[in-house]
Amino acid sequence: MQDLWHWFDLVGVAVFAISGTLIAHSKHMDGFGVIVLATVTGIGGGTVRDIILDTPVFWLRDPSYFIAIFTAIALSIYVLNRQRNMPAQLLQIADAFGLAFFAVMGMQKAVLLGMPNTTVVIMGVLTGCFGGVIRDVLAREIPLLLKGELYAITCIAGGIVYTQALSFDLGMTVAMWSAMATTLCMRLAAMRWNWVIHVFRYPEGHQSS
Amino acid sequence: MQDLWHWFDLVGVAVFAISGTLIAHSKHMDGFGVIVLATVTGIGGGTVRDIILDTPVFWLRDPSYFIAIFTAIALSIYVLNRQRNMPAQLLQIADAFGLAFFAVMGMQKAVLLGMPNTTVVIMGVLTGCFGGVIRDVLAREIPLLLKGELYAITCIAGGIVYTQALSFDLGMTVAMWSAMATTLCMRLAAMRWNWVIHVFRYPEGHQSS
Amino acid sequence: MQDLWHWFDLVGVAVFAISGTLIAHSKHMDGFGVIVLATVTGIGGGTVRDIILDTPVFWLRDPSYFIAIFTAIALSIYVLNRQRNMPAQLLQIADAFGLAFFAVMGMQKAVLLGMPNTTVVIMGVLTGCFGGVIRDVLAREIPLLLKGELYAITCIAGGIVYTQALSFDLGMTVAMWSAMATTLCMRLAAMRWNWVIHVFRYPEGHQSS
Repeated sequence: MQDLWHWFDLVGVAVFAISGTLIAHSKHMDGFGVIVLATVTGIGGGTVRDIILDTPVFWLRDPSYFIAIFTAIALSIYVLNRQRNMPAQLLQIADAFGLAFFAVMGMQKAVLLGMPNTTVVIMGVLTGCFGGVIRDVLAREIPLLLKGELYAITCIAGGIVYTQALSFDLGMTVAMWSAMATTLCMRLAAMRWNWVIHVFRYPEGHQSS
Repeated sequence: MQDLWHWFDLVGVAVFAISGTLIAHSKHMDGFGVIVLATVTGIGGGTVRDIILDTPVFWLRDPSYFIAIFTAIALSIYVLNRQRNMPAQLLQIADAFGLAFFAVMGMQKAVLLGMPNTTVVIMGVLTGCFGGVIRDVLAREIPLLLKGELYAITCIAGGIVYTQALSFDLGMTVAMWSAMATTLCMRLAAMRWNWVIHVFRYPEGHQSS
Repeated sequence: MQDLWHWFDLVGVAVFAISGTLIAHSKHMDGFGVIVLATVTGIGGGTVRDIILDTPVFWLRDPSYFIAIFTAIALSIYVLNRQRNMPAQLLQIADAFGLAFFAVMGMQKAVLLGMPNTTVVIMGVLTGCFGGVIRDVLAREIPLLLKGELYAITCIAGGIVYTQALSFDLGMTVAMWSAMATTLCMRLAAMRWNWVIHVFRYPEGHQSS
C-alpha cells in the first residue's frame, strides 16, 4: 500500500513534468531552463503541501522522483521533436491527470497527519493546483486555475468524495480511487463540454476572459 | 485578548479575500477560480509568515478562517452583481485595511516568538504585503507594492511604532492599536494625496511607471 | 571557517539586492517598493532553501543581512543616480556573482544536514536561481532561468564539482572555491559567447524566444 502511494506520487510528478515541458515547447522556450520549468511544475505542488503541513519535503531524501522527472522530460522532448503536429489539448489532458493524482496524494497525506476535513480538502486543491499555477506564472500565462472552466472545484468534489468515503468506513483504497476518478472525470468532462461556472453577472457587451 | 487577536486575524483574512474578489471582477475573470484567488489572497500572507517563523500554519486546524473567507466572497459577489458602478478606489481601500490588520498580526506573532526587532518589522511587512503580491502576480498586475506610492513603508512605520510602544512598556493593546492606526492612516493618506517617494533620479523625458 | 561562510552569505545577499535594484531601475519603477524588490531578491533564494530543508530561516535572528542589503541598495541607488549610462550587462554580471555565491552556500547547507548528493545539487540550483526568479516574476520579465542561455546548468556543474571534490576528500574549502569558480566562469562565458543548449527542434521558420 505504501508502495502504491509512492508510485502514484511518481506518476503525478512525471505527468506534471510532461505538462511543464509541453507549455515550454508551446511558448518556444528553449535550453536547460525548460527542464527546470518541468521539474518545478512536477514537484511544486507537493513541496508546498509538505511545507505547510510541516512534514519533511517528499523529495529531500528520495532521488527516485528526479529519475521519474528526467524520464518524463526526455520522453516528452523526444516525442515533441518527432511529431510536429501535437494534439492541441494534450497539455490540458496531462494537466488533468496530474491534478487528479496530486489532489488524492495531498488529501492522503493530510488525513494521515490527522487534519480536519476542511484542511484535507484544501490540501487536495493545493497539491493538485499549485504545480500548474507555478508553471503558468513562470510561463507568463494566466493560470488555468483562474480561467472560467471547472478546475479547482473538481479537486473539491474529489475531496468531498474522499472524506465521505472515509467517514463511511469504505477504506482508504476505495476512497482514493473514487476521489481520483471523480476529479479526473469532472475535469475531462469540463474540458470536453466547456463547463463553466459563472459567479459574476457582467453587464451586456462584456466578455469574461 | 487571545480572542481579540483571533477576530483580528479573521477580519484581515476576510478583507483580503474581498480585495481578491474585486481584482478578479475588475479583470473580468470568472468561475470558481475567482474564489480560489480570493482565498489565496486572504491566507497567503499569514501562511508565508507562519512558514518562515516555523510555527504551525494558522488555518491548518481551524476551519473558521474558511467560513470568514466564504462569507466575505459571497458578500462581495452579491454586491458586485447588484451595484454595477463600483467606486474605483474600493479595491485599494480594502487592501489598506487588510494591510494594517495583517501587519499588526504578523508583528504580534513574531514578538510572541521572541524575535529581534528587525525581524518583527520584517514580519509585519511580509504578512501585510504578501497576500496582495500573490493576488497581483496571479492576476498579472504589477504588484501595488512595487508602484511608486507609499506601501511597504507604511508597514515599516507601523512596525517602528509597535516595537517602540513595547519597549516603553505601553502594553500590547496600546502597541497594536497605535501600530494599526499608523499603517492605515499613512496608507489612506498616501492614496488620497498620492504620496510618492522617489529613490531614483531619471533623466528628463522619462516617466517612472 | 564559520565566519567565512557568513561573509559569503552576506556577499551573495548583497549582490542579489544590487541586481534587484538594477532591474527596478531599468523598468522605471520607483518608490520604496524598489527597496522591497531588492530585499526579496536578496533573501528569497536562501529563505526557500531553509524552508525546504526545515532549518531556521537564516535571517530570522540575524539582522546583519539587512545591514548588508541596505548598504548594497543605497550604494546602487547612489551610483545609478550619478552615472546615467550603465553598462548594459551589469545586471547579468551581478546576477552571475549572486548565482555562484548562493549556489555554493545552498550546497554547503545541504551537505551539513547530511542530504544525499541529488538533493545537494538541487539545493544549489534552488538557492542560486530562486532569488532571481522571484525578481523577474515580480518585475514581469520572463525569468533569466527560462531563457535559452546556460543558467541553471551552471549551478548543476558547480554542484557536480562540489560533490565530487567532497567524495575525493579534498576538503570543504577546496570544494567550495572550485564549485564557485566553475559556476561563475561557466555563467560569464555563457553570457560572453551566448552559449545556448537546444533541447527542442522547431520546424523551420520558428524562432525560439
